[in-house]
Amino acid sequence: MIANTPPPPYYAVIFSNLRTKVEEEYEETAQRMVDLAAEQPGFLGYESVRDGLGITISYWESLEAIKNWKANADHLMAQKKGRTLWYAAYKTRICRVERDYGFEG
Amino acid sequence: MIANTPPPPYYAVIFSNLRTKVEEEYEETAQRMVDLAAEQPGFLGYESVRDGLGITISYWESLEAIKNWKANADHLMAQKKGRTLWYAAYKTRICRVERDYGFEG
Repeated sequence: MIANTPPPPYYAVIFSNLRTKVEEEYEETAQRMVDLAAEQPGFLGYESVRDGLGITISYWESLEAIKNWKANADHLMAQKKGRTLWYAAYKTRICRVERDYGFEG
Repeated sequence: MIANTPPPPYYAVIFSNLRTKVEEEYEETAQRMVDLAAEQPGFLGYESVRDGLGITISYWESLEAIKNWKANADHLMAQKKGRTLWYAAYKTRICRVERDYGFEG
C-alpha cells in the first residue's frame, strides 16, 4: 500500500480533496482513473486514503508524464465531473521528490 | 483541512505509513508532534489521513526548516519510538512543490 518508487528524483502529484455528497458514478470513475493512470507511460505508483479528507498521491517519472496524464481525454472528462459533481474543494500540488528514506520492520 | 499554503515554491514532507498494533502513547505523541511542528520556523501547514494506510503531509518554507524539524530533540525521540513501536513500515519523501492549483466550490 506504500508505493514502491525508484530512487529519486521523481515526481509526485498530491491531490488533497473534500467530497460533496454526490455518489453518482464516483467510485467507478475513481477506480477507472487509477487503472488508466497505471497504464500511462512514466507512472510509478500511487497511494490513496480517505477519512473525511481524501489524499491521493500519484508518482511519475517526469513532468512530461504528468502533463500527458492531465491531458488524457477520459481523465479530462473525469476532472470536469470532479469540479461540477464530486468535490467540494481540492488542491493539486505538483512536486519533485528530492530525497526519500524508509523502513519496513 | 486542506492546508492553506502560499504560492510555490515551497516544500512538502510526505510521510506514508502502516501502523503496528501498539497503541501505547501513540495518539498523544502524534498530537504533540503536530503541535510542536506548528511552532517551528518555516512551518506552513499539514494534512493527515488514516484508513489503514496513513498519509501525513507537512508543508515547509525551505529544506533548512525541514532539516531543523527532523533534528528537534523531542521529534528525534518520537521518530525512534516510531521505528521501534508504532510503525510496521513507512516511507518519507522530501519534495519541492513546483506548482499548485485548486478549487473551492
